[in-house]
Amino acid sequence: MHSLSALNALYNEKFSVDNFHQNPTGLYKPVNHIMNIPGKRIRPLLLLMGCEMFGGDAKQALNPSFAVEVFHNFTLVHDDIMDNADIRRGVPTVHKLYGTNAGILAGDVMLAFAYRYLTDVAPQYVPSLITIFNKTAIEIFEGQQMDMDFEKRNDVTEGEYLKMIEFKTSVLLGCCLQLGAVIGGAGAEDQKLIYEFGLKLGLSFQIKDDYLDTFGEAEKVGKRIGGDIIQNKKTYLYVTAFNNANAAQKAQFTSLLTEADEEKKIKEVKQLFEATGARQQALDKSDELYNVALQSLQKISVGEENKKPLAEMAQKINNREF
Amino acid sequence: MHSLSALNALYNEKFSVDNFHQNPTGLYKPVNHIMNIPGKRIRPLLLLMGCEMFGGDAKQALNPSFAVEVFHNFTLVHDDIMDNADIRRGVPTVHKLYGTNAGILAGDVMLAFAYRYLTDVAPQYVPSLITIFNKTAIEIFEGQQMDMDFEKRNDVTEGEYLKMIEFKTSVLLGCCLQLGAVIGGAGAEDQKLIYEFGLKLGLSFQIKDDYLDTFGEAEKVGKRIGGDIIQNKKTYLYVTAFNNANAAQKAQFTSLLTEADEEKKIKEVKQLFEATGARQQALDKSDELYNVALQSLQKISVGEENKKPLAEMAQKINNREF
Repeated sequence: MHSLSALNALYNEKFSVDNFHQNPTGLYKPVNHIMNIPGKRIRPLLLLMGCEMFGGDAKQALNPSFAVEVFHNFTLVHDDIMDNADIRRGVPTVHKLYGTNAGILAGDVMLAFAYRYLTDVAPQYVPSLITIFNKTAIEIFEGQQMDMDFEKRNDVTEGEYLKMIEFKTSVLLGCCLQLGAVIGGAGAEDQKLIYEFGLKLGLSFQIKDDYLDTFGEAEKVGKRIGGDIIQNKKTYLYVTAFNNANAAQKAQFTSLLTEADEEKKIKEVKQLFEATGARQQALDKSDELYNVALQSLQKISVGEENKKPLAEMAQKINNREF
Repeated sequence: MHSLSALNALYNEKFSVDNFHQNPTGLYKPVNHIMNIPGKRIRPLLLLMGCEMFGGDAKQALNPSFAVEVFHNFTLVHDDIMDNADIRRGVPTVHKLYGTNAGILAGDVMLAFAYRYLTDVAPQYVPSLITIFNKTAIEIFEGQQMDMDFEKRNDVTEGEYLKMIEFKTSVLLGCCLQLGAVIGGAGAEDQKLIYEFGLKLGLSFQIKDDYLDTFGEAEKVGKRIGGDIIQNKKTYLYVTAFNNANAAQKAQFTSLLTEADEEKKIKEVKQLFEATGARQQALDKSDELYNVALQSLQKISVGEENKKPLAEMAQKINNREF
């Protein structure tokens, strides 16, 4: 088994160059732009770790690991167009730099390349990899649609919100681990367990992320606290608070949506999150999901030594140390 | 072997309903909208015919035949956004009806569904089908980029133009036939020949299409003659005429680009197409490519009886009877 830093090195050695054709440049410059923004490469690393956990060699899984990174970045390019976002990871978004048409087409070709890299492996794995990946891709688009739909609604339930973040962000983590597990030779039951581990870890992470945006410390989180509140973003805190609220609290909530004084808005919405029990509920839900994730990991039929890297990774992700 | 109408019936029986999930409706209503517009289904039919030519059963190729139709329609949805087109086949375009974001996301999910249907076949075919399809999809995006690039240029060569239409429209016809051939059990050499047949047939068709837009009869073509000239569209006629033109003709061409009197513009550009030899060159090129297509068909190592349906189809396409 390779260490985390060795896996990182393997990946970077192969993919830290411009991996796309040069021509037509109008098509591939935007692709190389987003692919070259430094990142944690968490999805490819999870895929490679999933492979090695079952005794596979990460080198056999490198192309699929690049596929999931290309796919993830494709979703960012199209999401940024839909969200009209100008900045991503500190640099201008693709459509901001190159125009909307270039962003649409760059995303499209990235999706095709994701499938190309995914299937550039030993042919016996191709049907399984494709089936898992297709299901995930479709769920991610459904999650993005739910997210856009929820912006226009005030009656989103906790269950609906959890399904949305599951589809929009968590299924890809489960998918990465399962793809790696397939190449590593895992059986059907172990594939299911490692998928569940990634899925629940992703959900736990997302809810904690919502929590920290409101209740974290600015230096640790690396961004202004309360951003979600200012934008009236439907987060786990928002949805649970609104559902838990009594009539008076609901009225206060609704009037705060249009409050112009940002400091006042943040302070009073935080108080509502506390008073409705949403703050504690978010922490509890995140912890619960993290524990469910670890239970799935424990059930996988490989030795403890093989589980250690992913258990450590889960802890790092949970502690915001990765 | 099934007749053309029997293949059509097989396809319609399975796919003339809403084939996509109902929820989220914001995602799938736009998809069902474009998929339900009546059409000739030429790509799925070519795929099914390619399969049966080699003795395969079209029923085994139905899912991939739907995949190419979904893929083709996905490209229309995204192209219509990029071209800012309001109408497609007589009805409002997806983004016009549902908004640009819905159009982007509907296209994305259609691409994923194309891969899902493509790979919903006997697993031994999956690696080949995916490899052929990936290559084609990437070329189509490159062709779309070339097309957008050419709009801003006046020095496009005949070779560049042919490469653009090859990528943008013809490779998909070759791909459909080859995908069918794979499922029908064709060997590598026959796969190459049937691909070439489709590719050249597509090129021949596209050049003739350009020709008829200018020199056809309105009743037969079913649209106003001269539309490409009015829009200064880079067609085979335009590109060859401009490259053949002497200095005086080039100057006349350039001044006609901004001519406001549409009838005068059409008349004088037609005269230039004639005087520069572009009109005859387009006819000759289309015929030449059609004959090359037929030669590829002739070389395929199956009996004449098996080639007959595709030979007849080629003739119908060439005569605008399909």
